[in-house]
Amino acid sequence: MLVIMKQGSTPQECNAVEDAIRRMGFTPLPVPGANRTAICVTGNRGPVESALLNQLPGVLECIPVTKPYKLVSREVHPDDTVVEVEGVRIGSREATLVAGPSSVETEARTLEIARRVKAAGAHLFRAGAYKPHTSPYSFQGLGEEGLHTLSRIRDDVGIPVVSEVVDTSMAEKVSEHVDVLQVGARSMQNFALLKRLGELGRPVLLERGISATLEEWLMAAEYLLAEGNPRVILCERGVRTFNNHSRNTLDLNVVPLARQISHLPVLVDPSHGVGMRDRVRPLARAALAAGAHGLVMEVHTHPDTAYSDAQQTIDVETFRGIVEDVEVMRKLAPLFP
Amino acid sequence: MLVIMKQGSTPQECNAVEDAIRRMGFTPLPVPGANRTAICVTGNRGPVESALLNQLPGVLECIPVTKPYKLVSREVHPDDTVVEVEGVRIGSREATLVAGPSSVETEARTLEIARRVKAAGAHLFRAGAYKPHTSPYSFQGLGEEGLHTLSRIRDDVGIPVVSEVVDTSMAEKVSEHVDVLQVGARSMQNFALLKRLGELGRPVLLERGISATLEEWLMAAEYLLAEGNPRVILCERGVRTFNNHSRNTLDLNVVPLARQISHLPVLVDPSHGVGMRDRVRPLARAALAAGAHGLVMEVHTHPDTAYSDAQQTIDVETFRGIVEDVEVMRKLAPLFP
Amino acid sequence: MLVIMKQGSTPQECNAVEDAIRRMGFTPLPVPGANRTAICVTGNRGPVESALLNQLPGVLECIPVTKPYKLVSREVHPDDTVVEVEGVRIGSREATLVAGPSSVETEARTLEIARRVKAAGAHLFRAGAYKPHTSPYSFQGLGEEGLHTLSRIRDDVGIPVVSEVVDTSMAEKVSEHVDVLQVGARSMQNFALLKRLGELGRPVLLERGISATLEEWLMAAEYLLAEGNPRVILCERGVRTFNNHSRNTLDLNVVPLARQISHLPVLVDPSHGVGMRDRVRPLARAALAAGAHGLVMEVHTHPDTAYSDAQQTIDVETFRGIVEDVEVMRKLAPLFP
Amino acid sequence: MLVIMKQGSTPQECNAVEDAIRRMGFTPLPVPGANRTAICVTGNRGPVESALLNQLPGVLECIPVTKPYKLVSREVHPDDTVVEVEGVRIGSREATLVAGPSSVETEARTLEIARRVKAAGAHLFRAGAYKPHTSPYSFQGLGEEGLHTLSRIRDDVGIPVVSEVVDTSMAEKVSEHVDVLQVGARSMQNFALLKRLGELGRPVLLERGISATLEEWLMAAEYLLAEGNPRVILCERGVRTFNNHSRNTLDLNVVPLARQISHLPVLVDPSHGVGMRDRVRPLARAALAAGAHGLVMEVHTHPDTAYSDAQQTIDVETFRGIVEDVEVMRKLAPLFP
Repeated sequence: MLVIMKQGSTPQECNAVEDAIRRMGFTPLPVPGANRTAICVTGNRGPVESALLNQLPGVLECIPVTKPYKLVSREVHPDDTVVEVEGVRIGSREATLVAGPSSVETEARTLEIARRVKAAGAHLFRAGAYKPHTSPYSFQGLGEEGLHTLSRIRDDVGIPVVSEVVDTSMAEKVSEHVDVLQVGARSMQNFALLKRLGELGRPVLLERGISATLEEWLMAAEYLLAEGNPRVILCERGVRTFNNHSRNTLDLNVVPLARQISHLPVLVDPSHGVGMRDRVRPLARAALAAGAHGLVMEVHTHPDTAYSDAQQTIDVETFRGIVEDVEVMRKLAPLFP
Repeated sequence: MLVIMKQGSTPQECNAVEDAIRRMGFTPLPVPGANRTAICVTGNRGPVESALLNQLPGVLECIPVTKPYKLVSREVHPDDTVVEVEGVRIGSREATLVAGPSSVETEARTLEIARRVKAAGAHLFRAGAYKPHTSPYSFQGLGEEGLHTLSRIRDDVGIPVVSEVVDTSMAEKVSEHVDVLQVGARSMQNFALLKRLGELGRPVLLERGISATLEEWLMAAEYLLAEGNPRVILCERGVRTFNNHSRNTLDLNVVPLARQISHLPVLVDPSHGVGMRDRVRPLARAALAAGAHGLVMEVHTHPDTAYSDAQQTIDVETFRGIVEDVEVMRKLAPLFP
Repeated sequence: MLVIMKQGSTPQECNAVEDAIRRMGFTPLPVPGANRTAICVTGNRGPVESALLNQLPGVLECIPVTKPYKLVSREVHPDDTVVEVEGVRIGSREATLVAGPSSVETEARTLEIARRVKAAGAHLFRAGAYKPHTSPYSFQGLGEEGLHTLSRIRDDVGIPVVSEVVDTSMAEKVSEHVDVLQVGARSMQNFALLKRLGELGRPVLLERGISATLEEWLMAAEYLLAEGNPRVILCERGVRTFNNHSRNTLDLNVVPLARQISHLPVLVDPSHGVGMRDRVRPLARAALAAGAHGLVMEVHTHPDTAYSDAQQTIDVETFRGIVEDVEVMRKLAPLFP
Repeated sequence: MLVIMKQGSTPQECNAVEDAIRRMGFTPLPVPGANRTAICVTGNRGPVESALLNQLPGVLECIPVTKPYKLVSREVHPDDTVVEVEGVRIGSREATLVAGPSSVETEARTLEIARRVKAAGAHLFRAGAYKPHTSPYSFQGLGEEGLHTLSRIRDDVGIPVVSEVVDTSMAEKVSEHVDVLQVGARSMQNFALLKRLGELGRPVLLERGISATLEEWLMAAEYLLAEGNPRVILCERGVRTFNNHSRNTLDLNVVPLARQISHLPVLVDPSHGVGMRDRVRPLARAALAAGAHGLVMEVHTHPDTAYSDAQQTIDVETFRGIVEDVEVMRKLAPLFP
């Protein structure tokens, strides 16, 4: 249940609604909004009776919310959320292209990649300074040195930057150097991290966990929104199944459904989703065709010598082909009203 | 290993090659072909030494085949296979659209659906006369009565017809009434049925099993080709995973890979693949974008009252929208050379 | 809903109940029984109103059945089913051990294996005359020759025999040579085959499909019972998951649940379930510990040279160890009342 | 490759070996040991040539390590690791029983549960002070208050305590109150947390991630050992599959294999593994039968009113039954030499 307050309702009226919710045995959760104040009823297991709340002063309407996720739901927020990052509008009708190498590499090479992908049509640049890897003996990223390279790209190349944060202890530092904080698939249910990023308020790119249900993914986003950070971008990047013919199984079924039930932008990462360079372009097309708001891809000037994930990294030429695909597919009739 | 004989090689020369293969401890399998005769070496576990075979009279060349599937592989058959069905060319650059209700229904209604989908742009009509269902108490299809309706559609509406065959005992009868015999997902490893359809020689639409690996799917096709039937069309229709947000998880990762390693046409069935009517169109688009040769979809004039699978059946209007999508997507650069 | 008729109820009374069910819009399914006649109501989607049926002459009681499976359910048949095969009681408190090579081999060697496993404690002998294999180029079993070997084992060694039937066309012939007809995992939803075996009435060992839900497995059994064959034995043999450390993932969670909701005996096949010889014994123990009525295992006098599945075939010595494990585990308190 | 130094080898000799490894282009990793010093060669992709290293002064032998995990492997550490916690020996022939409620509850009730499970045969007590939950609106644990209750249990009841740590920022504090730090399934690849716990050196109970392969699980353990903490206990608690009949699919196939390839103790949590109270005991038995070193179970004096996971929590009486099962199963022949 979401209680929408009238414009101009007073703090006293809000408090009275919250008290009423508590007396019903539930927990009120105020939801900040530019145009309206809303109060979410949480802690209930079945439907909530709205008659009492409806007649309180200042209450405009009571919206039943049938799902465990509330703030990420279209029931609560019917319009698409558009996350603005330095002028780039993620979640709008125009596809957003996020490109870059898996890892930050030498400053010179990384800058060169950033310039090239920007020239080819990328809207955001992504590269990892901290790389979570299955093995403790694998390359773990350049760390702080990588962050400084990302800062320089932001300043010199003039493209907003996305990078992963892997632990609460470094959230603040990473956020000083990049525009969008990525939560990787392995961290999707690192709730301490989600709460920290919810507080920080910077845009978050939330990857779906490798075996997360749609509901779990949306609940992870709910952690961010519940802490007051509405600037959340979802990213599907493949799930783990019995399939052994690709690194992951890209789940495009989830894309139109996520768009239906949530107002958050939905990107797709075909690089991790299929895991083989020569299949990134067909899956990139497919993701857009299924309704994704954009793509996240590993692109490199010299894919074969990439520090990590070389086998799934495409070259700039292939990326340019995908930019052309985007142009063609803009002519498709809109899937969503 | 595949031994390619020169054009005009004699039966005696072929026999000599087969004998040589047997002396090496392997099993020869002659592969009929319009332009060339080939002899497949089977039963080996490692690479086969070709020096001996190369020098036999009539031998043009020896092609190593590194995969357990041979006849379905591009190593053996580099060019795309196009399966022709009454003038419809499946596997060509033009997308093939297969549409119809899940089950054959009353003759009048089924004929009406066939006329409407043909008018809207369908190339083949599909409906099940025999319906395999999880429950013995569910509708099992109209059986022979349904076959006669399909015959009438073929004759009166003038659209080729696809229908499922579920057991060896009825393969011949079904093949008298329809143009393409469908092997459903549950039957993909019904090897007795595959052998029977291999002998019959009619075009086969081979659905991927719900938890079949790509290799198992291609090996199922290999059963058909090994019996001498090269008219095989692959159909991806979703796999079973932990996902609970859709009936199956449509695996579009498999599409470009199947096209790379096999020469057979690859269709996609988004109706079963996603299982919800309102998501069929986005996934239909995505399948074509990923490189499918066409689509198989459940379409009905009155979806809500369909005899089976109503929740995933689209109406004719939505189907017409997909036909328009096909037009737009033809402008995409070809993915495959 | 199941309508139980009084003992001594007349055919006319039964007919009247069936007519009443039809007038309610449902389909009656008479269920034969030694001590009582029952009539199953099928075709309903929600609960069935029993008031009308309760008052008909000859009706003892109406039992609501809440699951899509009816005849396999404990709601309908509260007591354990014990399937008797030549004096062996499968489904009783004593664990049943089924052992033998994957394939029937030469008569001499297969007879020797049968003698050895019988002496070691096996109750039934299993070997495949028809072997479904992923590849058309793999060994497909000795066929009829194998059936004759199985007949000889039955006669000369005096142990009942289990063997797989893979197609309706051979069901009758196989049933002449063996005591229990196995439906392999790939055929679990070959409904034509299930119906044929339901008519034949011979005991059936029904393997769970590699990605079948518990409900689908029980519904497959329901096909057999609905045709009048109550002599059905369930067999769990591993499911397909993302796991790559074993051939399948043995699902022991399903064992106590299948025993709770169904009255049918439940065996477990650890050979296919784990797929590696040196792990068969621990998983065999685990299966019994979880409540299985017995085990199906691949056992050979010379495992390394087995015609098929050598890597998962144990030797007679290991089998004897498992027989000892059974003795120890008999001392565990019964899990089921 | 692992280079084993002779007893009494000097630091200079070790340094020389490390230098030689660096000159070969690899990274040396010294592995501390009571009886021997070893130096692990990491960073190689193929086999390492040992001839050069073998002849250096102080080198006893070079052991090739064929797996990506090294320190957790039996190749490197052939004997079973036994983790001692306040006199409890985890990883020995005697099964270790870990029991307690899902969450720390009121001090009085939690103390009472601890006393009861200790009296019934539990060796360690487990309860969560910090509870990671899918929903931000669910009970998140009592936090610090819970930690103090755990301290009191340790002191007053005299049973060692296990509790989960969910973020690097609280690792130190939790470690002051409990004996074994649990890394939950969702955190198995929280590498920052693993490194922190590696440094702390306290015993760690490392749950397998819900979709982790065996290799990923062992690599997570490798992070702990590589930081110098050898006191690691593995815990299987079910994986995510297509199965919908239980919360997770308990993977007992992994138990004997993990024991074969790793020297670390392996526990099993049947409570999470099956997720339903009435099936915990059969799966507990099965886990021991498969070779687990012990069990982790949710046990409560009043399961129905447990703060969390009530549906999978057993009562003390059932726990006592499992203790009796352990007694019976001790009579099984040892599976491992």
